[in-house]
Amino acid sequence: MADRTRLDRLRGLLEEAGHAAMYVSDLVNLRYLTGFTGSNGALLLTRHGEVVFLTDGRYRDQAATELAAGGLEDVEIVVTRDLIGVAVGRAPRDLVAETHLIDVDSWEKLGRPEPAGRLVEQLRVVKDEDELAALRRACAISVEALQGLLSGPLEGRTEREVARDLHWRMLDLGAEDLAFATILAAGENSAIPHHTPTDRPLRRGDLLKIDFGARVDGYHADCTRTVVLGPPADWQREIHAAVREAQAAGLDRLRAGVPVAESNAAARRSLQDAGWLEAFTTGLGHGVGLQIHEDPFIGSAHPGRLASRTVLTMEPGIYLPGRGGVRIEDTVLVTDPDHGGEPEVLTDMTKELLEID
Amino acid sequence: MADRTRLDRLRGLLEEAGHAAMYVSDLVNLRYLTGFTGSNGALLLTRHGEVVFLTDGRYRDQAATELAAGGLEDVEIVVTRDLIGVAVGRAPRDLVAETHLIDVDSWEKLGRPEPAGRLVEQLRVVKDEDELAALRRACAISVEALQGLLSGPLEGRTEREVARDLHWRMLDLGAEDLAFATILAAGENSAIPHHTPTDRPLRRGDLLKIDFGARVDGYHADCTRTVVLGPPADWQREIHAAVREAQAAGLDRLRAGVPVAESNAAARRSLQDAGWLEAFTTGLGHGVGLQIHEDPFIGSAHPGRLASRTVLTMEPGIYLPGRGGVRIEDTVLVTDPDHGGEPEVLTDMTKELLEID
Repeated sequence: MADRTRLDRLRGLLEEAGHAAMYVSDLVNLRYLTGFTGSNGALLLTRHGEVVFLTDGRYRDQAATELAAGGLEDVEIVVTRDLIGVAVGRAPRDLVAETHLIDVDSWEKLGRPEPAGRLVEQLRVVKDEDELAALRRACAISVEALQGLLSGPLEGRTEREVARDLHWRMLDLGAEDLAFATILAAGENSAIPHHTPTDRPLRRGDLLKIDFGARVDGYHADCTRTVVLGPPADWQREIHAAVREAQAAGLDRLRAGVPVAESNAAARRSLQDAGWLEAFTTGLGHGVGLQIHEDPFIGSAHPGRLASRTVLTMEPGIYLPGRGGVRIEDTVLVTDPDHGGEPEVLTDMTKELLEID
Repeated sequence: MADRTRLDRLRGLLEEAGHAAMYVSDLVNLRYLTGFTGSNGALLLTRHGEVVFLTDGRYRDQAATELAAGGLEDVEIVVTRDLIGVAVGRAPRDLVAETHLIDVDSWEKLGRPEPAGRLVEQLRVVKDEDELAALRRACAISVEALQGLLSGPLEGRTEREVARDLHWRMLDLGAEDLAFATILAAGENSAIPHHTPTDRPLRRGDLLKIDFGARVDGYHADCTRTVVLGPPADWQREIHAAVREAQAAGLDRLRAGVPVAESNAAARRSLQDAGWLEAFTTGLGHGVGLQIHEDPFIGSAHPGRLASRTVLTMEPGIYLPGRGGVRIEDTVLVTDPDHGGEPEVLTDMTKELLEID
């Protein structure tokens, strides 16, 4: 649930940067700051304390309810069809906006404000208690659904049928929706990093890669496990073990104060030592929260260090076109160094190579 | 499924407007033109025939497969992390872009191209056979799911439970997903145009407003019915009849060649004659296709006329805060005048005020 501290922190960042006011129109950032979940709204925030929330008539009551739920009952709500027009009339001269998100035409109407940069995304990197509760629940539902799925026989059912089964299990356990369209890929399809489930039946000997997650209160879980139908072949064991080791190496560097690039280097070094680095063709991980992909993105070029209470994924893989692939992915919380600082895996489930019937 | 004629038609529009080339980066427009369903891609299209598709390494194979499925196997696919950089190197001087959609920072990197206008959206207004097939299927699934839901007893179950039941039914019937989060609102909640289901139980005497739809192959259905639990009160009958009449009046004007604004005028006049116009606080309808809300948007200010093969909604309502509300909505196809020209209701289901147990 949004609360006033988020707006206060944003105001602090505006002050630091020397901006008089910010116009926030991105719906995800808006939800973060105000709790508003409608499809049209904007926020005008001045450094000196004025806050105006703008939306259209459809969301008059919803905006009032959602803002009040976050303790923002005193924020002025303006109902208008012309959000930008009203904002221009109310904004001070030195306005900044999310030029990495807002469309050009709206920006022109706003009077071409200067870039705000990723100020709200920066705030969103560090999760508060409400956010962590939603993420924990989304991850717990995901894991329970997958465990249920993997207990049943899968052989002979199609990728599409099994993906739907998992979908239902997550809804049944209380997910509001999927976090994203499930990637469920059997046999040679498991070599495709982003595969859409087909009518291919699952056969004995297949690797089965399942990349999925539940969404709870707007927060996303992201988890991948790769299992095998029946006893694994040697090559399947080998690549699974290599990915598992790389994941452990990367995961171990998800600690407060450690450079983001370090986990990337550690996981890649592990894959390289095992001789599989060239078969790893995707990104290694990303922040997760109100968006399935959000800051920070793990990569060699990331200049920053990890902050505690950041939630992100760690997802190395080995993809062998035409044969099969393995990915292991967890949603992980960077913990407070005062409490040991061990990364906490929120998608807490075995990473053994499971043999499924 | 995308096919070459869509690119050819866009090239025709570019020629008409005198532009040398267009950069398309909006994912919905990109899917329409190319069939690509990934999360990062762009298209550079020149008037003289060159087509370059840009995406990153994650989507190398998927892009090739999806473009080939639409007969675009000869389109050059460039795999790069810097889509804009490559596009700038390949684009002719007189480039246009979707300034109503692209973010400011990307537009700056592209060299501040001139606005293309809503060229692709304009093409998308008129549906082809593949699109109509998906829309018909999405609508048929929606109706069948609702009919199943309404046959069961609803009293005592919560809004959230009933919404989930409907969700499951749509998936079971073959929907790939919901078209949007179901609005299921009982009693006084039915007066809220966009209501999120709660734990409020459904009680005898409640109006129950259900605004929902299935998605099939990326295409959205949009349907609303309002029913009553047990025998209706006189005021419920009255507002239901008034909405039904207004909907029929608006629906009758969804004909090829008729000004878009005419259906708006007809439905509003009907509500006004019945004395309920002030209780109608939302828009009357919108195009529906790859997006749940797309061109054309029905309103008094719309300057255009309806084209045959346009699909749009007609959704008047009466909302009485604190008491309840009624909305009746269909997804409707504007038909060819040569074949009678009667609007075809794709969400074909009774609009009687049903009494549910």
